[in-house]
Amino acid sequence: MSKQQGDAVNKQTLPESCPLPVTGTGDRILLAHGEGGRLTRRLIAEHVLPAVGNEYLAQLGDAAQLPRVDGPLAMTTDSFVVSPLFFPGGDIGSLAVYGTVNDLTVAGARPRWISLGMIIEEGLAVEELGRVLASVAAAAQRVGVSVVTGDTKVVPRGAADGLFLNTTGVGQLIEPVPPGPAEIQSDDVLLVTGPIGCHGMAVMSVRQELDFDPPPVSDSAPLLAAVEALRTSGTMKHVRAMRDATRGGVAAVLHEWAGACGLTLCIAESQLPVTDQVRGACELLGLDPIHVACEGTMVLAVDTAAADEVVAALQSVPETHEVVRIGAAQSRGLAPVVISRALGSEQPLDEPLGAPLPRIC
Amino acid sequence: MSKQQGDAVNKQTLPESCPLPVTGTGDRILLAHGEGGRLTRRLIAEHVLPAVGNEYLAQLGDAAQLPRVDGPLAMTTDSFVVSPLFFPGGDIGSLAVYGTVNDLTVAGARPRWISLGMIIEEGLAVEELGRVLASVAAAAQRVGVSVVTGDTKVVPRGAADGLFLNTTGVGQLIEPVPPGPAEIQSDDVLLVTGPIGCHGMAVMSVRQELDFDPPPVSDSAPLLAAVEALRTSGTMKHVRAMRDATRGGVAAVLHEWAGACGLTLCIAESQLPVTDQVRGACELLGLDPIHVACEGTMVLAVDTAAADEVVAALQSVPETHEVVRIGAAQSRGLAPVVISRALGSEQPLDEPLGAPLPRIC
Repeated sequence: MSKQQGDAVNKQTLPESCPLPVTGTGDRILLAHGEGGRLTRRLIAEHVLPAVGNEYLAQLGDAAQLPRVDGPLAMTTDSFVVSPLFFPGGDIGSLAVYGTVNDLTVAGARPRWISLGMIIEEGLAVEELGRVLASVAAAAQRVGVSVVTGDTKVVPRGAADGLFLNTTGVGQLIEPVPPGPAEIQSDDVLLVTGPIGCHGMAVMSVRQELDFDPPPVSDSAPLLAAVEALRTSGTMKHVRAMRDATRGGVAAVLHEWAGACGLTLCIAESQLPVTDQVRGACELLGLDPIHVACEGTMVLAVDTAAADEVVAALQSVPETHEVVRIGAAQSRGLAPVVISRALGSEQPLDEPLGAPLPRIC
Repeated sequence: MSKQQGDAVNKQTLPESCPLPVTGTGDRILLAHGEGGRLTRRLIAEHVLPAVGNEYLAQLGDAAQLPRVDGPLAMTTDSFVVSPLFFPGGDIGSLAVYGTVNDLTVAGARPRWISLGMIIEEGLAVEELGRVLASVAAAAQRVGVSVVTGDTKVVPRGAADGLFLNTTGVGQLIEPVPPGPAEIQSDDVLLVTGPIGCHGMAVMSVRQELDFDPPPVSDSAPLLAAVEALRTSGTMKHVRAMRDATRGGVAAVLHEWAGACGLTLCIAESQLPVTDQVRGACELLGLDPIHVACEGTMVLAVDTAAADEVVAALQSVPETHEVVRIGAAQSRGLAPVVISRALGSEQPLDEPLGAPLPRIC
């Protein structure tokens, strides 16, 4: 935890009483909590280390010292600016951990370590930060990664919105690593591992105070067990590409892949798994679920000859047991991505300039 | 660059003309630049990859695939929220790279890879972002690290202030790794590698529009060459601890170290290197330079028997040729850190609750 690692051990040098409010007495984050002095130490010692601490985070020093890794590495980074911080099915803390771990996972790596950078707006409730840290800790434990280094910055009121997180992950690549979307072949089958659009609609429903009952619930979850199931079943070698469908939804993944492989990816709208809640929320907001973010659902392109085996392996894991075929790759036609709509017509699937939903992750 | 890596290759799928402003026509960052769609791709393809691209960043996939490292690793993270983005002697881009590389360096590691997470406020000038990216690229090239993964988020006006960066670094630990501040011994010599407080005063002078002529200039710089000089001279084995004096300045480092080793660290105010510009600015603002941040200056604790050798090695490198002794460790007295003031009196050196200067890094 860079400069902060040493802070915990110095707690005994703090005076018993203090003329200014110190964490615990003050229930709000102050600018001084981010300035590397005594208040930063207290925050780390009393809130960060008890929640997410481990042997690496507790080291002294500017960088965590980590053991040798016996193979090639993978590295990924993501910032999280979701608003609100808490939503049905998750919060910014678990979202950050699962998001980063999923990026490593779908790249063919086993996640090992993550960093946690916090940019806090002055005035955030310490209790709220504590709940986020507890969520980070629970998520990290679930997927077996350690938060090994961190950083805390506080900016004045109005210079940020509540709390932004950055998590950067390092993992070990495990053979066979899928070759990636450039290697997608004609006739390859396209799979989606569960209902789409749940995360985006869960966040939007809370933010817009849409009173759905029950509300859409985020699919925020780790894909680690699913990918391990592909490895243990020996079916990973049939996977050309895997990607979690986050910003831009399933449509964004398909467009990236079509560009990489030069084929046309054809999907059937009728095959797309969409829950009633998400369908209802999307209709109200004029959105197509295929453009709406997921946070625990991935798209796979797999060799058609082995598609049934891959589906069976994914069905064995709770997070992906609703896996379905949504289409296939074919030689390049007029459009990079084509969708068969419910009424039977084939249409190019548009790729929006942006996404309809800012700050959903 | 996670989801963004694939974007560059898909540029050919973008239409020639576009009904909405696309980077280049629009000269401001839009929300849609952060949403993973076509505008994100354009931003990455036209601004990020040309500036900081390399074989790893250009990979497809959610995480960069990196080669095996032949030894134990180090990992560090830092977020940067400095205001203003540009200041005499540097900017948020070079500051982020050097800051992260320095954290790896003083931990005894050789930096290899960094991530770049950007949180952009809607409306930031694309030209301004371009200058920051060019600065990231130049700084990375200077220290021989590659930006291997990245992330772009855009938040609405008022939800952030211009631009925040997160850089997370991974490096390889190189023996001998300094044992750290807990191993500081009585009589160990304390060194500072150059004038202190320059970074904090440079940023404050611009922000407060103090018209110093010449203005204080940030010391933002890499400490890599200095630490390599310790290795090649064979003097690294005499170093107990190294730390770049960032937030909280030299005082924060001394307090952390005193807490870790249980000794009293005694320094002489007359030995502290302070430029006339920094002294003048500090007097005007009522600050003590020992509390003001540096960004290319480190504190070392070294075996007294080898202090001359260590000093000679550091003097051979431009960034640290002004290295001076500022004091020594002795058995624990009443205070963890003691300073001999100019008039001869010994006083406990206070550790502020926070730092006097928000958003200087």
